[in-house]
Amino acid sequence: MKKNYVKDVFHMSEGEEITLQGWIHKIYDLGHVNFVRLRDKTGIVQLVAQKEQLAGLRNETCIKVKGVLSKNDKAIDGMEVQVKEIEVLGKVYYDKLPFDINGKKINAALETQLDHRNVSLKKPSVMAVFKIQEEIGECFRKFLKLNNFTEVHTPKILASGTEGGSELFTVNYFDHRAFLAQSPQFYKQMMVGVGFEKVFEVGHAYRAELHNTYRHLNEYVSLDAEMGFIEDENEIMDLEEGFINYLFENLRETCARELKMYNITLPEKVSIPRIPLSEAQQIVFDKYGKRSPKGDLNAEGERLFSKYVKEKYDSDFVYLTKYPLSKRPMYTMPDDEIEGASKSFDLIYKGLEITTGGQRIHDHDMLVEAIKNKGFKAEEFEFYTENFRYGMPPHGGFAIGLERLTMQILGLENIREASLLPRDMKRITP
Amino acid sequence: MKKNYVKDVFHMSEGEEITLQGWIHKIYDLGHVNFVRLRDKTGIVQLVAQKEQLAGLRNETCIKVKGVLSKNDKAIDGMEVQVKEIEVLGKVYYDKLPFDINGKKINAALETQLDHRNVSLKKPSVMAVFKIQEEIGECFRKFLKLNNFTEVHTPKILASGTEGGSELFTVNYFDHRAFLAQSPQFYKQMMVGVGFEKVFEVGHAYRAELHNTYRHLNEYVSLDAEMGFIEDENEIMDLEEGFINYLFENLRETCARELKMYNITLPEKVSIPRIPLSEAQQIVFDKYGKRSPKGDLNAEGERLFSKYVKEKYDSDFVYLTKYPLSKRPMYTMPDDEIEGASKSFDLIYKGLEITTGGQRIHDHDMLVEAIKNKGFKAEEFEFYTENFRYGMPPHGGFAIGLERLTMQILGLENIREASLLPRDMKRITP
Repeated sequence: MKKNYVKDVFHMSEGEEITLQGWIHKIYDLGHVNFVRLRDKTGIVQLVAQKEQLAGLRNETCIKVKGVLSKNDKAIDGMEVQVKEIEVLGKVYYDKLPFDINGKKINAALETQLDHRNVSLKKPSVMAVFKIQEEIGECFRKFLKLNNFTEVHTPKILASGTEGGSELFTVNYFDHRAFLAQSPQFYKQMMVGVGFEKVFEVGHAYRAELHNTYRHLNEYVSLDAEMGFIEDENEIMDLEEGFINYLFENLRETCARELKMYNITLPEKVSIPRIPLSEAQQIVFDKYGKRSPKGDLNAEGERLFSKYVKEKYDSDFVYLTKYPLSKRPMYTMPDDEIEGASKSFDLIYKGLEITTGGQRIHDHDMLVEAIKNKGFKAEEFEFYTENFRYGMPPHGGFAIGLERLTMQILGLENIREASLLPRDMKRITP
Repeated sequence: MKKNYVKDVFHMSEGEEITLQGWIHKIYDLGHVNFVRLRDKTGIVQLVAQKEQLAGLRNETCIKVKGVLSKNDKAIDGMEVQVKEIEVLGKVYYDKLPFDINGKKINAALETQLDHRNVSLKKPSVMAVFKIQEEIGECFRKFLKLNNFTEVHTPKILASGTEGGSELFTVNYFDHRAFLAQSPQFYKQMMVGVGFEKVFEVGHAYRAELHNTYRHLNEYVSLDAEMGFIEDENEIMDLEEGFINYLFENLRETCARELKMYNITLPEKVSIPRIPLSEAQQIVFDKYGKRSPKGDLNAEGERLFSKYVKEKYDSDFVYLTKYPLSKRPMYTMPDDEIEGASKSFDLIYKGLEITTGGQRIHDHDMLVEAIKNKGFKAEEFEFYTENFRYGMPPHGGFAIGLERLTMQILGLENIREASLLPRDMKRITP
């Protein structure tokens, strides 16, 4: 078992013995005495060793070190380890690393970094992305459990698509053709209806979209929530806003080091304006002269409108509400007041959509009508509408793309940086 | 927003007003006055209503009730609700329910119950299974986080199989043939090596096994852990034993009601005997006259040996250790002492294997040799062995099938009962 972590060094006193395990981050050869930066999960510390103690060691060799702490004002946080003994735990086998990970940044194209994820992930600033990501998942679960949600695991292998069958990957399932789930939408609604009332799922979703952009992945982690017994979609927006505030509060505490690496200051209080899509489109046109596609904003419109919201409301977030029913899935609840509008929304964060949500239709006959109105055959969705025969409460929900949220919090340029091992149109390795 | 839950009733006083939302579990028509059992996520309570207040209501109608609490010794826990107002939130649309869920047990075959999961899950004893399951996942995460593990999400779409390519589902991934992950094995090892040191994942795993038995699912949730800087496989067994104790301690607190429904008393302290496989085989032969297959126990052997362990050690669990290297995957660490044995183990719980684990090979050249010894081409595993070039610490891990563990804790007869929506050779719906 591991004895100490690097982070412990800075809570210990000069003269104390310590046993550390980790990787050689960098060796500074100063003749007889050598300095070594040792890296573990929790940080980097300086070792002081005799040259002969380092024989055969190279960057990334995995070692166990016994030593004694001593003060040194020039070392990181003022403390270093005088090495008594080094044991090699894991040898290295390379001629040259594909790129260095001990400099200020990695000097290689993103694609090269992704090809060598076994090296690029070693860099502390890259690893920091996934500390943030882990905390997002943790907070999502904690916040929803505090609100009486139940965690569920629903199947990713389906007999039919969620919304008409486009953009689905097919699986050869024994003698059948099956599909990979685009979303747990139908199942999370079903779980509300059978009596879990409020459910969430943290799981993979698959989209066979022919998009190879900075913001698309074909396999991603979806943070899904669905809540029964709601009045309207505002409760869903309240819930997500509550989550964002809970998340930021926690990240400031648990990920201070990681946020600092990326120079990120999270707002103290997030209060998200709710603006109907049609108003947003008008503003984008009036202020920036850009026309939007019918019933939506495009990527440029999302960026411009976010800029406007930031200036006017000092908010990085904005809910676009009341999307036209015609542009939303068949299960979307129509708006009570505005003809043709729906009780659905998108959440835009720093210019990028990270969430789609809304209230769903809960009445069986109304849902069957809505399916027909979309031009689908109701019989083909009986596996779904069947769930609405046994007393479905008013309900709604949302889904957040985990990688997108991570990317936006840290201001990453490409969503692939927010995935340990991204899958896109051209990449299924490593 | 929901005002009260049924469970609140039993902490409230006579005369208090209450608003409940849930489903009609059962109506008792006693003429002018009617009793209704109202069911929500947290339990069942008795409503007392006038006949006219119940007009049009049927079993499973989703309602909102306002009323006043009154004492009644004959009601559940001595309290009932005098109804003032009922509002229908979700109508029902059926002629006859596929089966009743308000009796002692569901009077239908398991396959029928699974065909109508939207009804069978409503039964409190069925829902209880998933409360237990949720707590297992929660405890797995909590326990490992307490031990400095990091949660990761690794891809389920792969370019190559984990252990030679058998029993894999294929996916049509744009222009490529890809596979669904059988396990996150290679990736969790990679994540240890890049510096997360200790990782876990709660995610789906897929096995295209041609088994249609009470204990096989083709899609299941795998609780995976992998730990760096270990001495040997005993630390992995210690870790899992620690988890089991942590889990049982928590379940007794959080799931007392659910455990009681299934008449389960969990042991106070779990101390798991570690017995070499060859000894176990000998005991099964000596005591029960049954021969085991070479290098393994079969299902019957697991049951018989568990019986022996229960009698001799009063333990529901047993680790079978030192499996022959020839029967384990290529990455398995050979034993130091016994020629041909390995540092791997299975965990058997009440007669069923719920875990495979062990120490892995961490040296690049040794791994390449092991791959060749298994008859594979080392070049075809370069994507994997490549990860061992950059300083891999000694490490090992284990995986638990979530549904199997749930099933064994509750003594369920079929693993399908421990999956919200099971996938087997014949079932990909609902």
